[in-house]
Amino acid sequence: MSKFPLMVIGTVAIDSVETPFGKQEQVFGGSASYFSYAASFFVPVNLVAVVGADFPDSYRAILKERPIGLEHLVALPGKTFHWKGKYEGDLNSAQTLATELNVLTEFRPMLGPADEPKLLFLANIDPELQLDVLNQVKRPKCRFVACDTMNYWIGTKLPVLRTVLSRINMLVINDGEARLLTGSGSLIRSARKIQSMGPDIVIVKKGEHGAILVHGEQIFVLPAYPLEEVFDPTGAGDTFAGGVMGHLAKTMDFSFENVKTAMVQGAVIASFTVERFGLERLRELGTREIEERISLFRKICKF
Amino acid sequence: MSKFPLMVIGTVAIDSVETPFGKQEQVFGGSASYFSYAASFFVPVNLVAVVGADFPDSYRAILKERPIGLEHLVALPGKTFHWKGKYEGDLNSAQTLATELNVLTEFRPMLGPADEPKLLFLANIDPELQLDVLNQVKRPKCRFVACDTMNYWIGTKLPVLRTVLSRINMLVINDGEARLLTGSGSLIRSARKIQSMGPDIVIVKKGEHGAILVHGEQIFVLPAYPLEEVFDPTGAGDTFAGGVMGHLAKTMDFSFENVKTAMVQGAVIASFTVERFGLERLRELGTREIEERISLFRKICKF
Repeated sequence: MSKFPLMVIGTVAIDSVETPFGKQEQVFGGSASYFSYAASFFVPVNLVAVVGADFPDSYRAILKERPIGLEHLVALPGKTFHWKGKYEGDLNSAQTLATELNVLTEFRPMLGPADEPKLLFLANIDPELQLDVLNQVKRPKCRFVACDTMNYWIGTKLPVLRTVLSRINMLVINDGEARLLTGSGSLIRSARKIQSMGPDIVIVKKGEHGAILVHGEQIFVLPAYPLEEVFDPTGAGDTFAGGVMGHLAKTMDFSFENVKTAMVQGAVIASFTVERFGLERLRELGTREIEERISLFRKICKF
Repeated sequence: MSKFPLMVIGTVAIDSVETPFGKQEQVFGGSASYFSYAASFFVPVNLVAVVGADFPDSYRAILKERPIGLEHLVALPGKTFHWKGKYEGDLNSAQTLATELNVLTEFRPMLGPADEPKLLFLANIDPELQLDVLNQVKRPKCRFVACDTMNYWIGTKLPVLRTVLSRINMLVINDGEARLLTGSGSLIRSARKIQSMGPDIVIVKKGEHGAILVHGEQIFVLPAYPLEEVFDPTGAGDTFAGGVMGHLAKTMDFSFENVKTAMVQGAVIASFTVERFGLERLRELGTREIEERISLFRKICKF
């Protein structure tokens, strides 16, 4: 049995981010980095990703601070995946200025017989890579598979994405992308349509407006934790998913009630992420601080 | 003592509305129409507004279905206020195609000594008219004054709007307009800035994303009731305010906890409004249906 109950495949990136509060080059980012860092507050996480020769040791050291397995963090010759983005106005959506896939195009994940996750998260990355990993993971030993994606893949690789969707338990997706995927304006109806593509559980992320859960027939709506100021929203969605999957991996309970609890955990972790650039805020985060904010969050939402 | 504990001044309009689901001319609309119809589920409402000679008797009859006082629904020669709008995409914001003030420019409300509301709502209308009515209402006999406004008045009549704000207990305002009024991207920070302009209670409406309450030091966030389909969002904000003020007028309790309860009532009434054009859905609404949806709403939001 693997010592990592949770596995994630996704991107590890070097980002450039501009917000109304500042501009930073060389931010440690990527869907799998944010996800694994957040999930590691709950269970050990096995990180499947690729970096280039330019990936700083100091970034690897950041991941080593946490119970994150780096055996499948492959280094290839070339440059690390790079994303450059900018936020304006209400900070709710990023404008992508540049995406350089670099080593991502060469990456072929190779899991070993010892890699037997109980839960798998296919973070935002080329659906062909998602499918590749999904094919290497043994079901039903792997009890629960969830996935995220983005407009780019919906636009360019829909058939393979549909294959992935047909084989997962849960999709975690942005509101705009849920609408794009289904052609429906209503998020509840979008989630229903996504259910008909495969996953029984759909979480629609709405950024600063929270998230909606459709779990079988049941519906749950959760606001975002109301912050006085959002500094940089990059990684909020990935850390949200990390909190959700981390809690599910810790409890191995995929019921409606427990997915709700997982979403509260995810929303609170995400609320810390956006207070600073990159992983800066999460690096100084303790479990007591998380618990305190969860308790405040419950109070703020209670009626 | 007036038999109407709640008074509203605002617009009564004949709208033209286009949504992805259809187009309708001659829709009975206006901020005060929606507000008073919704609030009348809780208490009798005194409606202060103006219409033109073209205002159909059938519309007046619709208001007469409910305990709505029409003594101050003045008819002037000319045309009724007209708004023409269009919704696209996610239906969250209207595009105004035309606004014809018509008789609104001639309107001077004249309250009598018998008009002594306990609560006053200054619905979305020229702030000079809001101030005019506010000046005619006796404080502290009128215990609670709340107000709504829009980008047009923030842009063109800010000084008089600021005077109104300095004299009210509660502002109910859209997210975009809260940002416009304060120059702040964060809604919590916007609400705090608005508090410094006068009202101790600020409700920021976020359309399909719910609403935020800042009440003194305390904060509450409420999602919107998740509908499978929004047919026409016109009047949602006004019926929300009607439900809020109706509940407050019925209970005469302006505490944080009770304003929260009032917002739940308002959100549920608003969720019915958007299921059809104009007041159509509200006209067939019964209190049992409202209570059932409130109970479902509590379940959907509970964690």
